[in-house]
Amino acid sequence: MFEGIFDYSIVKRAQDQDDLRLKIYDLRDWATNKYKSVDDKPYGGGPGMLMRIDIIDRAITNIKSQMTNQIQKLKVILLDAGGEKFTQKKAVELSKEEHLIIICGHYEGVDHRVHEHLADEIISVGDYVLSGGEIPAMILVDSITRLLPGSLGNPDSLSEESFNPSISNAKSEYAQYTRPETYKNWKVPEILLSGDHAKIKKWRSLAQ
Amino acid sequence: MFEGIFDYSIVKRAQDQDDLRLKIYDLRDWATNKYKSVDDKPYGGGPGMLMRIDIIDRAITNIKSQMTNQIQKLKVILLDAGGEKFTQKKAVELSKEEHLIIICGHYEGVDHRVHEHLADEIISVGDYVLSGGEIPAMILVDSITRLLPGSLGNPDSLSEESFNPSISNAKSEYAQYTRPETYKNWKVPEILLSGDHAKIKKWRSLAQ
Repeated sequence: MFEGIFDYSIVKRAQDQDDLRLKIYDLRDWATNKYKSVDDKPYGGGPGMLMRIDIIDRAITNIKSQMTNQIQKLKVILLDAGGEKFTQKKAVELSKEEHLIIICGHYEGVDHRVHEHLADEIISVGDYVLSGGEIPAMILVDSITRLLPGSLGNPDSLSEESFNPSISNAKSEYAQYTRPETYKNWKVPEILLSGDHAKIKKWRSLAQ
Repeated sequence: MFEGIFDYSIVKRAQDQDDLRLKIYDLRDWATNKYKSVDDKPYGGGPGMLMRIDIIDRAITNIKSQMTNQIQKLKVILLDAGGEKFTQKKAVELSKEEHLIIICGHYEGVDHRVHEHLADEIISVGDYVLSGGEIPAMILVDSITRLLPGSLGNPDSLSEESFNPSISNAKSEYAQYTRPETYKNWKVPEILLSGDHAKIKKWRSLAQ
């Protein structure tokens, strides 16, 4: 699932430059039965299957044992629709960690002992239902990678962001236009073509 | 970028069953210069590159011309950090459309005339900065596909959801546990092992 997205653009570049090391693990590698199952039915009944605490715990322990440096700067994150809302502020915070282990839950859920004993943080990317934590993990990786030193393609964008790492920099605070100047009778506002930078600056600040 | 994710799980199944037809287009196919560029510098200055209105408009027009049925039930969606927040309610609404054209903006932005003249809706998946609209598009496709008739793996989950298509069904309203019963001294609450369904129901409702 991660092949296409992480072999592309900023995440690829950050890995090439060794700003980021990304490893995808398959929980099934820590499964113990012959079906390699990682989930089971909920106690007390209910639909769906829950991911098991023992398998996730063994995976995390094993992954930690492979880390050689600054293992104290590690956060274990569980992606779950019931978690704290992910924001740009949280992305900035997590970009300062040395290691992140991101657990991709699946839709029906994860044994609650993972919440209680293994996850340092439980994060949700938004108020919508997804099949699992894989796409949310991509969101974390992409947004955090953008914040790593040296990993942004455009140094101007980087410096603008670094002043104020909030979402407001991601929204186009003012309307932006590029060529062609006129398309189907839809024109670029004249002021932007005027070359008068003081006026343009004022126009943009008023548009916010 | 979309290969891994859409060849997997629920989106793959929905396509196999012909509940969903998904096509990925490359905007460069509508570029006109020899570099196949789809963006250009903003008028009035500023960092980054904006996606061009003319190329996006030609792409949409061409894609529409390939549609043969119910083209009136079509929504054009632009993914943009400044858009309306995506929610499960919106996913339900969009799942009823016959056709969706999702424009993946890129980080620096899209010519504002796309907002004004081409997009029916402008949607943001959350308050964080991403490199582009590709991962948000995956979120839309996954969440909407889950809502298409017949596309859910588990019919129990589907019927629970169909009663109330809100996010509350995605959050684990109560703590859920599966085997093993005891792991590292962390135990499943005894009531869930009691087999007393009335008591379990009450416990779960109190936990909400």
